[in-house]
Amino acid sequence: MTSSAVSELARDLPTLADVEDAARRLDGVAVKTPLLEAPQLSAQLGGRLFIKAECLQRTGSFKFRGAYNCMSRLGAAARKGGVVAYSSGNHAQGVAAVAQMLGIRAVIVMPADAPAMKIRNTKSYGAEVVTYDRYGESREAIGERIVAERGAILVPPFDHPHIIAGQGTMGLEIAEQAAARGVRLDAVIGPCSGGGLIAGTALAITSRSPATKVYSAEPAGFDDLARSLKSGRREKNDPAARSICDALLAPMPGELTFALNSRLLSGGFAASDDEARQAMATAFTHFKIVVEPGGAVALAAVLTGKYAIAGKAVAVVCSGGNVDAETFCTALNSAR
Amino acid sequence: MTSSAVSELARDLPTLADVEDAARRLDGVAVKTPLLEAPQLSAQLGGRLFIKAECLQRTGSFKFRGAYNCMSRLGAAARKGGVVAYSSGNHAQGVAAVAQMLGIRAVIVMPADAPAMKIRNTKSYGAEVVTYDRYGESREAIGERIVAERGAILVPPFDHPHIIAGQGTMGLEIAEQAAARGVRLDAVIGPCSGGGLIAGTALAITSRSPATKVYSAEPAGFDDLARSLKSGRREKNDPAARSICDALLAPMPGELTFALNSRLLSGGFAASDDEARQAMATAFTHFKIVVEPGGAVALAAVLTGKYAIAGKAVAVVCSGGNVDAETFCTALNSAR
Repeated sequence: MTSSAVSELARDLPTLADVEDAARRLDGVAVKTPLLEAPQLSAQLGGRLFIKAECLQRTGSFKFRGAYNCMSRLGAAARKGGVVAYSSGNHAQGVAAVAQMLGIRAVIVMPADAPAMKIRNTKSYGAEVVTYDRYGESREAIGERIVAERGAILVPPFDHPHIIAGQGTMGLEIAEQAAARGVRLDAVIGPCSGGGLIAGTALAITSRSPATKVYSAEPAGFDDLARSLKSGRREKNDPAARSICDALLAPMPGELTFALNSRLLSGGFAASDDEARQAMATAFTHFKIVVEPGGAVALAAVLTGKYAIAGKAVAVVCSGGNVDAETFCTALNSAR
Repeated sequence: MTSSAVSELARDLPTLADVEDAARRLDGVAVKTPLLEAPQLSAQLGGRLFIKAECLQRTGSFKFRGAYNCMSRLGAAARKGGVVAYSSGNHAQGVAAVAQMLGIRAVIVMPADAPAMKIRNTKSYGAEVVTYDRYGESREAIGERIVAERGAILVPPFDHPHIIAGQGTMGLEIAEQAAARGVRLDAVIGPCSGGGLIAGTALAITSRSPATKVYSAEPAGFDDLARSLKSGRREKNDPAARSICDALLAPMPGELTFALNSRLLSGGFAASDDEARQAMATAFTHFKIVVEPGGAVALAAVLTGKYAIAGKAVAVVCSGGNVDAETFCTALNSAR
């Protein structure tokens, strides 16, 4: 498979069958992360709140799923030129870790202001890291240049059927774990940047549990999907917007992901930085998990009542835990 | 079953069959906590390190298992007088939560210097909390007085067959989870206070995986089991000893637990406060879980090289995550 062959695949929207195929591929490789409940918190909220603790996934975020589902399909010839990816940090770590597992060279294009621990972790998997200015340069252009120069294959962060299907395996697990407990979920809410995770999750959930609604959660100022769902076309974020949710700063919805999300989602929520920090503190106190700011926005949507949980059963995705101690403790302290 | 009937049971040592019976009772009630691996950390250590993330258990520690296995067996007559337990905080929460589930009144005797969040959590399950001076009063005496006054049943923290068997279900899960991955564990290391968790775990592991050695880990100054294993008799800790590991301050090994541990364990390790804090920080960085000081001592034993992991596969138990933000952030900061 060559770089252009990967691009051709991107024309096709993934289906539930692709998600199920990805689940077979990831079986025994990815962590089946637990669906946690804190009965005390559920009682406080007047509904049942479940957390899909995807921060416990390999590399500390769901991104491992899509990267492995995509890259493990590359043939020997395609692997020779290596892979390139652009990422704010979690896709970077996912691609770098999978590249190391499969013995593929990886170049990762990361914003210079990405959290130091995400850059450090990515390098620790043996990847070459190239940094750029998040607000002044185009990561896509830098990625494409490396593809051209080195004959490398681009592993896109979200807008690719294998990436979407890989992330969707998390949604399959939610459906299976809820069913195993006899719980009928009213809603699943997941963080959204380019929309790969929530699109794959919506594919799985709306097929396996048709009565369950699926919602996205984004940082305030980066709620391009929520606005796009309302307007019916892909809206962009204000380039001047800023957020502590470093994992969720994509400028607009993906093409494939929006084609799915516009059909499958029931709406979207947005969380402020303070609301994300409060959700991180709640995850610490009630669930004993480490959640990064961007990983906490879906939980924030419930805790702030933007999604009204009373009398309902809801699963929220905590999508990543790659946060440094300083940011984490600031969140815990600000929530006291 | 009356209070004295419970005491009579205590004469019998539990067996693997009791642990398996407890596992059936806990199925669908307790969380099957994940066995996590951080491949990067394993590579750094030159061996395979797995963490049994028992901080993700209901009530934030393994104590839920034993409490449920014990209390769910009480008949209607026995439940009427309520239950009483003495605990530094995790058994307190376990008993209080189970009492709430089963509709039983609970009085919990807790040291006045227990972490505020543990006292708060225990009360939040509807239990009545009675505090005492950890270093000046006998919690056993206070507990027995309440038993006598109220006709309540004492749920002991560790020295009871149903408690030990309940905690042992965690060991069964480790054996099953390792086997499912094709991993032959060289060792399992678990935190130890009175010894119920490690005794139950040793019952499960030495039966299901006979080649695997089982070790205890304790706070420095509270390594009564390690010293008892060497001397062959139950040694006491120096009453002047202090540790941040508030969950692991039992004065000496239990009678039943030592009868099992002296036969089944291969030795014990001790970790200083600083080593426990460093392990908490490693759990944060590599595993994205919140571990309290006492929950981190087994991980500390591996990270400090007290157990030499090179070339081996080891599962360490992170037994609880009930820690306040201040203590947690102090640990993260001191480890930078």
